[in-house]
Amino acid sequence: MSSNWGNPIHLSIFGESHGPGIGVTLDGLPAGEAIDLDELQIQMARRAPGHDRTATPRKEKDLPEILSGMLEGRTTGAPLCALIRNTNTRSGDYQNLSVLPRPGHADYTGYIRYQGYNDIRGGGHFSGRLTAPLVFAGAVCRQILKRRGIDIGAHIYSIRGIVDQPFDPVDVDGPLLQRLSHMNFSLVNPEAELPMRDAVEQARLSLDSVGGIVECAAVGVPAGLGSPMFGGVENVLSSLLFGIPAVKGVEFGDGFAAADLTGSQHNDPFRMVDGNVRTVTNHAGGILGGITTGMPIVLRTAIKPTASISQTQNTVDLVTGQNAELAVQGRHDPCIVPRAVPVVEAAVAVAILNLMAEGNKL
Amino acid sequence: MSSNWGNPIHLSIFGESHGPGIGVTLDGLPAGEAIDLDELQIQMARRAPGHDRTATPRKEKDLPEILSGMLEGRTTGAPLCALIRNTNTRSGDYQNLSVLPRPGHADYTGYIRYQGYNDIRGGGHFSGRLTAPLVFAGAVCRQILKRRGIDIGAHIYSIRGIVDQPFDPVDVDGPLLQRLSHMNFSLVNPEAELPMRDAVEQARLSLDSVGGIVECAAVGVPAGLGSPMFGGVENVLSSLLFGIPAVKGVEFGDGFAAADLTGSQHNDPFRMVDGNVRTVTNHAGGILGGITTGMPIVLRTAIKPTASISQTQNTVDLVTGQNAELAVQGRHDPCIVPRAVPVVEAAVAVAILNLMAEGNKL
Amino acid sequence: MSSNWGNPIHLSIFGESHGPGIGVTLDGLPAGEAIDLDELQIQMARRAPGHDRTATPRKEKDLPEILSGMLEGRTTGAPLCALIRNTNTRSGDYQNLSVLPRPGHADYTGYIRYQGYNDIRGGGHFSGRLTAPLVFAGAVCRQILKRRGIDIGAHIYSIRGIVDQPFDPVDVDGPLLQRLSHMNFSLVNPEAELPMRDAVEQARLSLDSVGGIVECAAVGVPAGLGSPMFGGVENVLSSLLFGIPAVKGVEFGDGFAAADLTGSQHNDPFRMVDGNVRTVTNHAGGILGGITTGMPIVLRTAIKPTASISQTQNTVDLVTGQNAELAVQGRHDPCIVPRAVPVVEAAVAVAILNLMAEGNKL
Amino acid sequence: MSSNWGNPIHLSIFGESHGPGIGVTLDGLPAGEAIDLDELQIQMARRAPGHDRTATPRKEKDLPEILSGMLEGRTTGAPLCALIRNTNTRSGDYQNLSVLPRPGHADYTGYIRYQGYNDIRGGGHFSGRLTAPLVFAGAVCRQILKRRGIDIGAHIYSIRGIVDQPFDPVDVDGPLLQRLSHMNFSLVNPEAELPMRDAVEQARLSLDSVGGIVECAAVGVPAGLGSPMFGGVENVLSSLLFGIPAVKGVEFGDGFAAADLTGSQHNDPFRMVDGNVRTVTNHAGGILGGITTGMPIVLRTAIKPTASISQTQNTVDLVTGQNAELAVQGRHDPCIVPRAVPVVEAAVAVAILNLMAEGNKL
Repeated sequence: MSSNWGNPIHLSIFGESHGPGIGVTLDGLPAGEAIDLDELQIQMARRAPGHDRTATPRKEKDLPEILSGMLEGRTTGAPLCALIRNTNTRSGDYQNLSVLPRPGHADYTGYIRYQGYNDIRGGGHFSGRLTAPLVFAGAVCRQILKRRGIDIGAHIYSIRGIVDQPFDPVDVDGPLLQRLSHMNFSLVNPEAELPMRDAVEQARLSLDSVGGIVECAAVGVPAGLGSPMFGGVENVLSSLLFGIPAVKGVEFGDGFAAADLTGSQHNDPFRMVDGNVRTVTNHAGGILGGITTGMPIVLRTAIKPTASISQTQNTVDLVTGQNAELAVQGRHDPCIVPRAVPVVEAAVAVAILNLMAEGNKL
Repeated sequence: MSSNWGNPIHLSIFGESHGPGIGVTLDGLPAGEAIDLDELQIQMARRAPGHDRTATPRKEKDLPEILSGMLEGRTTGAPLCALIRNTNTRSGDYQNLSVLPRPGHADYTGYIRYQGYNDIRGGGHFSGRLTAPLVFAGAVCRQILKRRGIDIGAHIYSIRGIVDQPFDPVDVDGPLLQRLSHMNFSLVNPEAELPMRDAVEQARLSLDSVGGIVECAAVGVPAGLGSPMFGGVENVLSSLLFGIPAVKGVEFGDGFAAADLTGSQHNDPFRMVDGNVRTVTNHAGGILGGITTGMPIVLRTAIKPTASISQTQNTVDLVTGQNAELAVQGRHDPCIVPRAVPVVEAAVAVAILNLMAEGNKL
Repeated sequence: MSSNWGNPIHLSIFGESHGPGIGVTLDGLPAGEAIDLDELQIQMARRAPGHDRTATPRKEKDLPEILSGMLEGRTTGAPLCALIRNTNTRSGDYQNLSVLPRPGHADYTGYIRYQGYNDIRGGGHFSGRLTAPLVFAGAVCRQILKRRGIDIGAHIYSIRGIVDQPFDPVDVDGPLLQRLSHMNFSLVNPEAELPMRDAVEQARLSLDSVGGIVECAAVGVPAGLGSPMFGGVENVLSSLLFGIPAVKGVEFGDGFAAADLTGSQHNDPFRMVDGNVRTVTNHAGGILGGITTGMPIVLRTAIKPTASISQTQNTVDLVTGQNAELAVQGRHDPCIVPRAVPVVEAAVAVAILNLMAEGNKL
Repeated sequence: MSSNWGNPIHLSIFGESHGPGIGVTLDGLPAGEAIDLDELQIQMARRAPGHDRTATPRKEKDLPEILSGMLEGRTTGAPLCALIRNTNTRSGDYQNLSVLPRPGHADYTGYIRYQGYNDIRGGGHFSGRLTAPLVFAGAVCRQILKRRGIDIGAHIYSIRGIVDQPFDPVDVDGPLLQRLSHMNFSLVNPEAELPMRDAVEQARLSLDSVGGIVECAAVGVPAGLGSPMFGGVENVLSSLLFGIPAVKGVEFGDGFAAADLTGSQHNDPFRMVDGNVRTVTNHAGGILGGITTGMPIVLRTAIKPTASISQTQNTVDLVTGQNAELAVQGRHDPCIVPRAVPVVEAAVAVAILNLMAEGNKL
């Protein structure tokens, strides 16, 4: 129930950061879907550290090997398993963590959960590296969705409070999302890049880190997907999104800003446009009663600042039961937000494919 | 997959607003747990409209009849089903909705999803009335949790931007949560009540509505609950919370505010306190890597302004395909936030009991 | 995970034999399906004791009240809940069971499982009475299937080794199954009735009981339903069938007889018939690799002899830890096989509707 | 939902017979469990063809590579993934199957299910080779169970009607099961071997095949595991067992033989033995009301004769829609029953570990 998700599209993720390999098995995919491996590779690369200046110097090669589920470039309908070998690690950086849990990390909670037996090297199964299999799965799903007229894309909404131009929830369209989902520092307005990078650089120099918000949209999703109560689109998407390390909040449409509006401001009036039912505004983010309206789905995820910072921090020694100090060595991302963008897109892609399958739209 | 949730504690909710009855079946409860029916009734009453000045005049009697799963005041371990009869409805208020979907409601999306066959009277299965069974389930669960030292309580964090005093995420304690969970207009600081009620009254006079934010905390939860990735505490809680109508955002700990902090500001240092591992601050809201730390779990849900407003609104006529207008009659809550408080507590209680069962703590 | 089953068609059963009521919630039904309540009643009556000479004199009125999910005679798509009140019980018959578990019953195992808190009256949640909600659910499902050309019917294959004429697995057809599923003592060959009833009567006179086998078939099921491995038709059906009390074996096609055949005897050759792919024989019972072939699905369930017999039996006293004796009073069915027939049909109907929904055939 | 199973112990199997590799991911295992890799290898070898005279000359090396979930010989609690490379195949043997489905195989049903896109080489995902990952998973689970006093073992109950000595359902014990689960042609009474091998050899000479029955037992399982209705031990075990290719029937205790007994013959009286509640006989096979009694669990699976036979068979040409003939070349097992023995044990081990986890016994 933890590293497994979904029905009828099922995701099973395995791997630890410093183990032999990580990967994912996708079950329930429709058969006969052509999958472009180069496009998969582009998505994997957007996530990998070392491609962008903000990121960790650790260079992972996320070349997935497909072990099953594909034949002659098409899905067979049987489970599709992809394996990514871990090749570029330095175990020594993590030596003293078994007794000194790092603040903000899952060292302490994993220790309690697994009675000390979990693999802590690089964070083990909790490592951000485990987003690579999720991006692979999402990249497969999004190709299947694209073929059905659905586009998914995300951008850096903000880093350290420095904002990009947000999506227009009515007019956001496929071409914009296509463009964003092929960028490494995804922004709607390029002018936001410099101040954002400055903020990140400042953090690096201070041995600190910063967080931000990722905004994601999906267009072309037919109306009528999802189910009331616990099978709603928000439930399904958030159950995946909160599986991305560092995500501490998820909102749809106006989200928390809706709390300050009146009903007459927030309600989206209906209107016929070219024979289709549309809404004039889209404060709802494309979802009413847990079910899609056909308008763009718009959501935002809050990414906490990276827990790994080189500053000295207070902690405890789990063996002696005494207070202690810790200065984490190693190679840290001062800001993972740019790399979280393709991960958010991936989670949304897997969720929407599941909703499409459930709604008999595949 | 929609009105069903959970494993090993399973929730199955049924009912439509104007049908014969609504209810819930809870499966997987531990056997032998004493359930105080009067306490259940208190929780049901907090949710029901007509008890508080902000609410709808429609007075529901949410007296649940327990059909199974209890014997001599204790759970038997077999599924516990509770039925609530619908007695106080006026069908006539909703007559023209079959072709004129109300903005902000699930009329249109339900129509597409169920090809026009869904029961729309009072919103049918999408109605806010369906939170009554959820409150019942939560009330049962919270008694089982209380017995194990866990308290859950929530308050109105804000209405229309008017804020209450927020929880102190380190010091929030059982007595405060106990007090809040027995109030009808739950506030930490009573001085916030008047301005909040004013804002609601203004909305009512304008034939409009307002939204707000509910903040909930759980204390006494042992460390080590939850699983990495998709079985994390945030995933489990949000999958239930987004099932509450009108919830458009969920955040944990600092939530979206964390996006503006640095790592050194957001990380919670560990410290030994009376032989226990605690954190000095609690920006994480009691959860790291999806697993509980033992510190208070703190979360916030964004409640959009009630969609039902009496102002005239633009919509479409689903039969003729023309634009149209709509003025909804009937009895509307200009603000459901006070009544959402016990519903949020209920969802959190069900989720935490599930995590406790999964973690072998029952 | 116990009294809940299925996805996307979900079944949640509640109730104890002597509690206020029993019932079922069916979630995931397609919307707009007309349900004939009289036909439902006929199916409920086939199962109820007191309609057939072999059965218990206890007369239950299984009149279900539909609480939700139906409007103007059609499913709304929202969860459909039916409640059956318990009205005709005599608690006194079961007084001493809390310490003297009856052999063959779940008294002992339920006591261990629920630490003594389970409701034992009439067997509580383990009672055969809990097949009534399953029959209701199956009756709803079979109407939806019938509309799509699928017929399901079962007969008494044998009682105490006295056999009926078995189904011809190639030629069994809708009219035969229709006829069988409206009989109270369902037989293909009426001449088997007399010897069977004699065997039952002999058992009654001896304060004993007999068991038998129920054979069920489904015709008109399209090819291609089910999934390999654990989602196969046999897996799905058996996971429901073993939930019927007293079922101790399930086999498909030739079943255990296949173990004595050679491959050339058991393989079903393919042949074109009127442009359709058919098999010449049907030893496979309509299933290959867990997936339907389009040929009739044929299966058999072994029903153990009713555990409730009036003979004195050896048991233990769970309080004193001593050996003891027990003579169960009360009203017992010497043979439940005739009444198990509609229950087997019901389980098969629910399972096949789930497979149809999963295979996008609804 | 197909190649995935279980909660909280979850199994995800991937792979096609002639693809790069097959494997399994096991999620939810308890942390800190020592796993003996040599013992795993022994179990894998029992299943692999080429070790026993009855089997296919195709020699698979089932050397699993563990990619995650283990550290220093112990489970970490994170998902455990094992990969087995496919190395010894001859694609050419299967060339004409895309249009001529083999009787008794999933060629036709897989073609319909996956619209012709499934990988048919060697049977693809339907191949018996996919039992290797299941055996791996079972081998891991059984070590965890053994540590808790639970033994599982199976034997060839019969081949082509030639029987071994069956288990004594009361006295079957750990040492016997240990012995059987380390044999390649598992028999209680060695004298059955010769006539069985003769029957197999006769089949081989006739270009035919034979089937049989595998009987499995588990001892040391505590009482009180399982849940009523659909969560019962029979439901859980059969949902896995029917995932083994060629299984067409599953029975527990006396199974289908119970249908010929009377209640007084079939009921198992209770008796105190050394302060423990036991039953004098064990017709119930260790399960009452879906819950374990503490007595040995005994079950039988019917294995149909291998579908792959070299005789010419009638089939259809799926492209031309004409009748046709087929003679399958290649290397076929005339009897897979001896190799099914470890697979049945594996399925039972996975299921019982799941029940133990669910019952908080781990």
